[in-house]
Amino acid sequence: MADPWKECMDHCLEVTKEAGKMIREALQKDISIMQKSSPVDLVTETDQKVEQLIISSIKEKFPTHSFIGEESVAAGATSNLTDNPTWIIDPIDGTTNFVHRFPFVSMSIGFAVKKEIEFGIVYSCQEGKMYTARKGKGSFCNGEPIKVSGQEDITKSLVLTEMGFKKDPEHFKTMMGNIETILTIPVHGIRSPGSAAVNMCLVACGAADAYYHMGIHCWDMAGGAAIIREAGGVIMDISGGPFDLMSRRLIIASSRTIAERISQVIKAFPVGRDDIEG
Amino acid sequence: MADPWKECMDHCLEVTKEAGKMIREALQKDISIMQKSSPVDLVTETDQKVEQLIISSIKEKFPTHSFIGEESVAAGATSNLTDNPTWIIDPIDGTTNFVHRFPFVSMSIGFAVKKEIEFGIVYSCQEGKMYTARKGKGSFCNGEPIKVSGQEDITKSLVLTEMGFKKDPEHFKTMMGNIETILTIPVHGIRSPGSAAVNMCLVACGAADAYYHMGIHCWDMAGGAAIIREAGGVIMDISGGPFDLMSRRLIIASSRTIAERISQVIKAFPVGRDDIEG
Repeated sequence: MADPWKECMDHCLEVTKEAGKMIREALQKDISIMQKSSPVDLVTETDQKVEQLIISSIKEKFPTHSFIGEESVAAGATSNLTDNPTWIIDPIDGTTNFVHRFPFVSMSIGFAVKKEIEFGIVYSCQEGKMYTARKGKGSFCNGEPIKVSGQEDITKSLVLTEMGFKKDPEHFKTMMGNIETILTIPVHGIRSPGSAAVNMCLVACGAADAYYHMGIHCWDMAGGAAIIREAGGVIMDISGGPFDLMSRRLIIASSRTIAERISQVIKAFPVGRDDIEG
Repeated sequence: MADPWKECMDHCLEVTKEAGKMIREALQKDISIMQKSSPVDLVTETDQKVEQLIISSIKEKFPTHSFIGEESVAAGATSNLTDNPTWIIDPIDGTTNFVHRFPFVSMSIGFAVKKEIEFGIVYSCQEGKMYTARKGKGSFCNGEPIKVSGQEDITKSLVLTEMGFKKDPEHFKTMMGNIETILTIPVHGIRSPGSAAVNMCLVACGAADAYYHMGIHCWDMAGGAAIIREAGGVIMDISGGPFDLMSRRLIIASSRTIAERISQVIKAFPVGRDDIEG
């Protein structure tokens, strides 16, 4: 049987390349303008322009499809995932990196049908790396197949996570405590690249062995979820249960052993859900 | 007056390119071999081969010069810095990254005369970025001039540091406490790329605004010290006093304001010196 979503994935790749150009052009602007005048405005402007480009191009070709986009949600759209074919879009993943031109800035698109992710594309714009994955067909970086490291021993693993200031002192304490817990297992090291979608691809291609995060969104994870699965990796909820795209949290790893170990040792703090307002 | 060290810098660039090829070739090896059989042996083997290549090539041309190299020191050589022209070499900076093929792996060479750094070269092998700086002549990445962001406001800054497991619980607590302190200023974020020399270059080209570290070595800092200074950045000791290449600690930043703020808020733990044995 022909792949019913091939046309969608082909179109997604085209639009990602086109939108990637837009991001790279924005990154060429003088860094002093980016950081001094009004970096928040600049990133919002580019974010919105890129998302509009992606959505309008897809809508024209597939008018009945649904969309969940970071910027559309910020502008008031809901992010309820239905059974309808749905494009889940983060136009710029790693906006702080974008403002600083730190090397990891990506665009992430995941495509779900009946709430199952069918394919994912993550484009790491500054590295020039296009990660793609179609359900059952493997993961690729610039057309070359990629796979996870296969590491089973957490003491030999490189772990990715992100740290940020949390207003709630308890959440902040838990986040820092989790980093201490992981470091003292001990592991080879912790790295913080600053883009959730790139982190997922780094594990998918074996450059790191695990990544955990609480507080991200479905548009940060949808594209990468396809890529990590098709690269032979494991994706689960922080609790150790099944991954839930709308839960705002995840663990991914090169093996079930490592993912489960992380779920056992880290503590969760409440982050809400993407499909419940407020 | 002709630059007395131009010939040395030209030769350094040539040998860095040649040695960089060797590292890239080692990174092409199957990742399962790298991580499973004996990663420590593999990295040591490559580290030693690269350092021997660099030192033998330089010695042939400049037989009276001195050397401080990570691998030579590991093999028992001293790391006393004298007034003699001295090449300070880290063949692979970011060895954990190397083992995992995480994107930041670099070679760092600094050249000091009368204990002053005359030039520095850092080659980020996987990114294909060659950073160079000659005292008084500016900093470059692949031949294009680079400069720091110029950011003065720490609350708008992206800060780099590294976290690792420390056997001494007090040191570990101080390291983690410092990260908490920086995050709660607050800053835009903290990133941990895993290579000291690359971190220095990221600040030099404006992709981050500050970097601090305790426990690194002179060979991690010598090349980058030239690059950050010539890019208009500030380099100082953790105490806020003058940078000391043998002190195993540093703060660098896009501005004196940010560097001094970091020196005021973080706490030091003892790390020894490179020029005192044990």
